[in-house]
Amino acid sequence: MSTTSHPAERILLGPGPSPVPQRVLQALAAPTLGHLDPQYLAIMDETCELMRQVFQTKNLLTFPVSGTGMAGMECIAVNLLEPGDEAIVCVNGVFGGRMKDVMERCGAKVHALEVPWGETYSLEQIAEALDRHPGVKVFAIVQAETSTGAWQSLAGIADLVHSRGALFVVDAVTSLGGHELRVDDWGIDAIYSGTQKCLSCPPGLSPVSFGERALARMDARKTKPQSWYLDVSMLRKYYLSGGGAGGGRVYHHTAPINMTYALHEALTIVLEEGLNARIARHAAMHQRLRRGLEALGLAYIPKNSLHTLNCIGIPAGAEDLKVRQRLLADYGIEIGAGLGVMAGKAWRIGLMGHGSTVRNVDLVLAALREVLR
Amino acid sequence: MSTTSHPAERILLGPGPSPVPQRVLQALAAPTLGHLDPQYLAIMDETCELMRQVFQTKNLLTFPVSGTGMAGMECIAVNLLEPGDEAIVCVNGVFGGRMKDVMERCGAKVHALEVPWGETYSLEQIAEALDRHPGVKVFAIVQAETSTGAWQSLAGIADLVHSRGALFVVDAVTSLGGHELRVDDWGIDAIYSGTQKCLSCPPGLSPVSFGERALARMDARKTKPQSWYLDVSMLRKYYLSGGGAGGGRVYHHTAPINMTYALHEALTIVLEEGLNARIARHAAMHQRLRRGLEALGLAYIPKNSLHTLNCIGIPAGAEDLKVRQRLLADYGIEIGAGLGVMAGKAWRIGLMGHGSTVRNVDLVLAALREVLR
Repeated sequence: MSTTSHPAERILLGPGPSPVPQRVLQALAAPTLGHLDPQYLAIMDETCELMRQVFQTKNLLTFPVSGTGMAGMECIAVNLLEPGDEAIVCVNGVFGGRMKDVMERCGAKVHALEVPWGETYSLEQIAEALDRHPGVKVFAIVQAETSTGAWQSLAGIADLVHSRGALFVVDAVTSLGGHELRVDDWGIDAIYSGTQKCLSCPPGLSPVSFGERALARMDARKTKPQSWYLDVSMLRKYYLSGGGAGGGRVYHHTAPINMTYALHEALTIVLEEGLNARIARHAAMHQRLRRGLEALGLAYIPKNSLHTLNCIGIPAGAEDLKVRQRLLADYGIEIGAGLGVMAGKAWRIGLMGHGSTVRNVDLVLAALREVLR
Repeated sequence: MSTTSHPAERILLGPGPSPVPQRVLQALAAPTLGHLDPQYLAIMDETCELMRQVFQTKNLLTFPVSGTGMAGMECIAVNLLEPGDEAIVCVNGVFGGRMKDVMERCGAKVHALEVPWGETYSLEQIAEALDRHPGVKVFAIVQAETSTGAWQSLAGIADLVHSRGALFVVDAVTSLGGHELRVDDWGIDAIYSGTQKCLSCPPGLSPVSFGERALARMDARKTKPQSWYLDVSMLRKYYLSGGGAGGGRVYHHTAPINMTYALHEALTIVLEEGLNARIARHAAMHQRLRRGLEALGLAYIPKNSLHTLNCIGIPAGAEDLKVRQRLLADYGIEIGAGLGVMAGKAWRIGLMGHGSTVRNVDLVLAALREVLR
């Protein structure tokens, strides 16, 4: 099975996974420990503490869900919503739409707050929506919409949401570790992300964090969460030291041991660089790429672009698939196709985590110049 | 974070994870590809084909769920059951009980067929239960009950189940790759397993397989599965080549790329050894361990013991925790504690996959002889 033995060394400049540092790959290959081994539990505790630092939160209930980012989304939905609850979800791309679907499957009545793809929300729009639907239990928004490359400001939203008694839920899959994100300062009650974007770890875990308000909501549930696998009332007894009866740990499921090693190492690298330096690097590389793309006559689709993912229109005369195939074949560069309504109309160039470098920016610009010639 | 950089090299003789071959750890650390990269899709297709061979099935819909074994259990439950459906679950240990809980969370009415922990089921008991509950949509049983070490024969069950129009669902978490398991010959309609038991791959994926009857049931659903993450109607469009509209693949979630490499390598190793040789090795190592344990005066709890997991009573005078701690500290050997009602009463010694060797059997016997002295 030679293909597997030697996967090609791509330069991953799509919407994720992003390039994984060799240190993280090495951590992944460390000897497997048992999921109740004291040494593994220490590694897991450290991993959760590193996650708290990267999320900028003191939330005790911060842990990696044993699935990819969408499992984190579903974990938050099934635990915070009960059948009949109302929620508002901001839908301006694929991932907002997906959150609506996930929440509806929980039996919730979901009000979609829609704006055209690529646009984002003002505080006025959010306040109006909350006033239109006074009974909502959850208000959910995507900070970094991976399908459009649009960046959503989160400042000031919590006050609006909390004054109506709702919980503030954020999708940070494509922003955690690449954009400013202050879970506690911004009053976020529940948040999920993925490992394979700006943390530059392989996919397979979903960092989540729940604050006090979210905990109180879960403790007040009248029904069991519909998912056993994602039931936080049980997960917390495994992930939190002293979370079980008598202060011990209670086995729930077998955690993805080696993926936890990798996440630990990836988070360590993030904090070695420093969150502020890392965020500044993502901003600078975005500006460098933007200048180069605009010099090539390429235009951004969203008004407020993410630094981590650059969504540009496919220029007239260029063949979507052929361009991406040539980038892959001649340069080993992966960029992303358009998603949803943007299929065939957009390219998405990710500069995430380990991949957000001068070398990659200048290389992808050189490659596009050649391929679009 | 030195603990993570150097996890100890344990000898994993508990209920899983089992020891991971170096080849599998190396595969895990191969460069990360994009989840839509043609090379990755080829690796995934190969992995699904290897899974079919190990499951002994032609089922097209055979793929790894992006979560640990319990995600596979939940995947089958949420896709095959709709609210109000009836099911029979055989409960003779923790995992049968868990399946009942998972299915009840799907809104199903679940009839537990209970026998004392450690015992298994006769065809007569199964036929009687099916006759008592004529409307059931699903009959579910655990082939290898990890909490008691009991082995359940599956021969002849399918005819009973199918003659009543129900689907035959099997938990094979602790048997796949270690015990005989013939999905097609035995008429199994849906089955799930884990990677970290007899396949000797780290935890993080759950191999599942669905047959034609299960597919027909899913196609006839009136409601969406309550889980978006585990919705097979979408997963099949990603995992099956040509599963999407127009014959293409449809993105669902970002698959755990590196874990797929590891599973590919682990399955390759299973088939290099040969399924029959591997099953015979597990049987021989079980017999060797049994002779040694019985010579030490230790007794098996289940009447029909698994070859892959040996569940023995803790002898009078031995301190459960102290013995396990000494095995870990002095020998680097992990064995399992009792689970559920067997906590404090049983030890579980796993001989799974790469761990089922003469070397490990003789070592754990020597260590127990010393520690129980």
